Amino acid sequence: MTERPADFSTAISAVGPGRVTLRGYAIEDVIAGASAGEALFLLLSARRPTRQELRVFEAILACCADHGFANTAAVASRYVMSGSAHLPAALAAGLLSFGQNTGTAHLTAEMLLALRGPDGPEAVTDAAMEAHIRGLRGRGLAIPGFGHPVHRAGDPREHALRAVVAGCGFASPHGALIDRLHAIVRRVTGRDLVLNVDGFFGALLLDMGFGSDAIFAVNIIGAMPGIAAHAIEEREQGRRLRIPPHDAISYDDVPHDRTWDARPE
Amino acid sequence: MTERPADFSTAISAVGPGRVTLRGYAIEDVIAGASAGEALFLLLSARRPTRQELRVFEAILACCADHGFANTAAVASRYVMSGSAHLPAALAAGLLSFGQNTGTAHLTAEMLLALRGPDGPEAVTDAAMEAHIRGLRGRGLAIPGFGHPVHRAGDPREHALRAVVAGCGFASPHGALIDRLHAIVRRVTGRDLVLNVDGFFGALLLDMGFGSDAIFAVNIIGAMPGIAAHAIEEREQGRRLRIPPHDAISYDDVPHDRTWDARPE
Amino acid sequence: MTERPADFSTAISAVGPGRVTLRGYAIEDVIAGASAGEALFLLLSARRPTRQELRVFEAILACCADHGFANTAAVASRYVMSGSAHLPAALAAGLLSFGQNTGTAHLTAEMLLALRGPDGPEAVTDAAMEAHIRGLRGRGLAIPGFGHPVHRAGDPREHALRAVVAGCGFASPHGALIDRLHAIVRRVTGRDLVLNVDGFFGALLLDMGFGSDAIFAVNIIGAMPGIAAHAIEEREQGRRLRIPPHDAISYDDVPHDRTWDARPE
Amino acid sequence: MTERPADFSTAISAVGPGRVTLRGYAIEDVIAGASAGEALFLLLSARRPTRQELRVFEAILACCADHGFANTAAVASRYVMSGSAHLPAALAAGLLSFGQNTGTAHLTAEMLLALRGPDGPEAVTDAAMEAHIRGLRGRGLAIPGFGHPVHRAGDPREHALRAVVAGCGFASPHGALIDRLHAIVRRVTGRDLVLNVDGFFGALLLDMGFGSDAIFAVNIIGAMPGIAAHAIEEREQGRRLRIPPHDAISYDDVPHDRTWDARPE
Repeated sequence: MTERPADFSTAISAVGPGRVTLRGYAIEDVIAGASAGEALFLLLSARRPTRQELRVFEAILACCADHGFANTAAVASRYVMSGSAHLPAALAAGLLSFGQNTGTAHLTAEMLLALRGPDGPEAVTDAAMEAHIRGLRGRGLAIPGFGHPVHRAGDPREHALRAVVAGCGFASPHGALIDRLHAIVRRVTGRDLVLNVDGFFGALLLDMGFGSDAIFAVNIIGAMPGIAAHAIEEREQGRRLRIPPHDAISYDDVPHDRTWDARPE
Repeated sequence: MTERPADFSTAISAVGPGRVTLRGYAIEDVIAGASAGEALFLLLSARRPTRQELRVFEAILACCADHGFANTAAVASRYVMSGSAHLPAALAAGLLSFGQNTGTAHLTAEMLLALRGPDGPEAVTDAAMEAHIRGLRGRGLAIPGFGHPVHRAGDPREHALRAVVAGCGFASPHGALIDRLHAIVRRVTGRDLVLNVDGFFGALLLDMGFGSDAIFAVNIIGAMPGIAAHAIEEREQGRRLRIPPHDAISYDDVPHDRTWDARPE
Repeated sequence: MTERPADFSTAISAVGPGRVTLRGYAIEDVIAGASAGEALFLLLSARRPTRQELRVFEAILACCADHGFANTAAVASRYVMSGSAHLPAALAAGLLSFGQNTGTAHLTAEMLLALRGPDGPEAVTDAAMEAHIRGLRGRGLAIPGFGHPVHRAGDPREHALRAVVAGCGFASPHGALIDRLHAIVRRVTGRDLVLNVDGFFGALLLDMGFGSDAIFAVNIIGAMPGIAAHAIEEREQGRRLRIPPHDAISYDDVPHDRTWDARPE
Repeated sequence: MTERPADFSTAISAVGPGRVTLRGYAIEDVIAGASAGEALFLLLSARRPTRQELRVFEAILACCADHGFANTAAVASRYVMSGSAHLPAALAAGLLSFGQNTGTAHLTAEMLLALRGPDGPEAVTDAAMEAHIRGLRGRGLAIPGFGHPVHRAGDPREHALRAVVAGCGFASPHGALIDRLHAIVRRVTGRDLVLNVDGFFGALLLDMGFGSDAIFAVNIIGAMPGIAAHAIEEREQGRRLRIPPHDAISYDDVPHDRTWDARPE
């Protein structure tokens, strides 16, 4: 027996016999009054959303719900389900595929935050944005939030989300900023790159006060329904062990017939 | 170039340039009309919920939103965040702690399905339930859905969820079944074991037609908000590397001073 | 500050300022004297292997080192690397694909342990083995350790491992048992099913005193080199985001043009 | 049926019926002749190590084998095992804790590579190293490879590994470079920071031609034995669900008694 200080301190929730609070609200109130979307907003932001914020937030999550095989998560989830037959393993593999190239709303948000500075999104000049985009291009880097491998002429989710934003009158200074940035991206690159849905809702979540980690979490948690659906469908299809077809592999680069000689010195 | 059949077939969603459907619905309709909860229901069930189902489903997800340090997920997530500083890794660790002992709604549902048979929940006899519970006890196994390490006199989430079910008039034959089972569990064990929230909503999701994997997925996805909040709080607290305090470890069982002799034969 | 008992107790290792022991051996001795294979054996078994055990153990690990695209791990690892660009995420996805259908040495070992009983492997009768195999067949279950999707006429790793066992004179009562079982499997199924390498080394690790979890761990850890090589090759090939080709997907089962009507009652 | 190019191309291994090669070597030769350490070296480097390289490489892996509770991996693994009872989930959680703050050999190597330039480690000037260290300090960043939370007066693994390097006559230009850097780190920081084992073997693996990803993989794979031993010990100790003791948590920051009012506008 030793005397020790607390190992953890938290501002998220308190749990004791017969009593649970989330961000200071009794769990009974949350269960009676909050949707899953609102519970997520509350846990990440420590406050309840306004009606407009909640409407846009739920729409953002719906945007992420599934994108079929046009991302890395569904395939990773299916392969792992096929090998392991363990649902949490498949869900984990799907979400682990998020990062540099999948789920880039938070990268867009970080870019906007870096551009924005303390004076807010309206104070960003076109010249600063153009310099930033030219800098990325000069280093051969992707511009987060722009371009899509499938939706080259427009991301239907971005359009639908924009309609929700307009429909409920949600004011979006960061949305206005990314639209200005979009025009500059097209001019500088000379290409008709789309604003993709991740880029757009990265801006919207900045309007709601979310930080980079919270935006990334929204992106990933929003995608869990599709990851789960693919894992479960994989099991239901009953194939025991998924292996890519032999013809799908090129072995041209494997060296041939090396001899296991005496060890090199 | 080879001719090959499709590697994957799916009934979940279709994605092509400028067009996405989820379970046959245009993504624009889902974004405009569905909450995150409804999108999850749709992807797992291939149909839209009724108004009552959706109300109960959102409440179930809110029940799972966070349970502080009274489970394995938050701690796993925090340790991994502390070491890796990579949010998806922390989220994955949190959800990977779900299984035999964490997130047992699907195990409760499987037990009810095994008891139920083809004639539905009303046809289950008390004798069959008692025999099942005695069988588990005889083999020293836990009874899924009953008992809780913290909420020994009643799980506040189960009470609040029950109020939602009653409030919206959701008919729950499997809820009635698990209440009957609860009485038998108390009689057979001689202990005042609570019906925990996982057990209760496992029954409710059976009423909505969910299978075991989908129920497990709801349990896990519902818990992602809390897992994310803990991971993010861990980073914000700024501690570089979490290590349990030296006094928290007993090394009594480590052997002492073994000699690295010649190899045993 | 509170008084508390230790949270963890361990027999594995002790770490203090300037001092580390593994299973009671000074870390200096382990570093000076043990290969990676011996360090793994020591940590899992709490003793040093004999020379013969170590030779066979290293060969078992080499058997697992990589199996190209003929398993689920390499593909899962590559998709996750492609999306996340985070090496630990890719490694985790690869190992998470181990389970019911990938890495079945421990399932073979559990089957042998169940057959064996307290009198050892020599006491198992042919009748008991035949009854067990017929039981699995009757329930439509796979027989762990037998059959292979690619190596239908013989698993080259099993042959090579057998040569190592013979070459160093390692006595293997459980290897003899699984060879007897192999003959019965062929007779009962009427098919020329191979003994695969997982099945064979599951038996060998029983000879060394490993339990089911430790055998599974050997299988998985042995496979980490290949998982890592694939993840790294994926990054080096420089493709930004791996997506299956559109033609690889059949969308025949996705429903068409459902209308987002009023909510169902 | 469609005509498609290969989805994957690889230089790692080739697998066909009855035939497996790793980096061009027949699997039979690898199983007969390679230790687990050599198989890992071969897969990551596409060549066999020299005798000295292999001796040092095995010692590096032994250095990583376990570090008890003085890292994040063991605890993460134990919590996940306790909740999930699924060994691969626990192993994945342990390795996912590697990253920015755990397993920093590759970060040290990247720093040395950035300092080194094309002229090799001998050409690095003291002035360049000092400027680099002052730069890190100025930005409040940690110096990879230096300092240890437990081994403040010397990392016993680094000492033991150094003895192996000297004992087998392995020439290490990058080891010499990091020793020079060590002196500068102590002078610039005014603190007696140790060179930790990760920092030292990061340099040694550069001598063998490994890149950053491969060095990170060696660090992680080397740690898998300890992660597995902790997961298995957790199961064997038979505790059903690990939860931190109530006294280990401070709830001081959770807000109190917030009222679930009408939604904010």
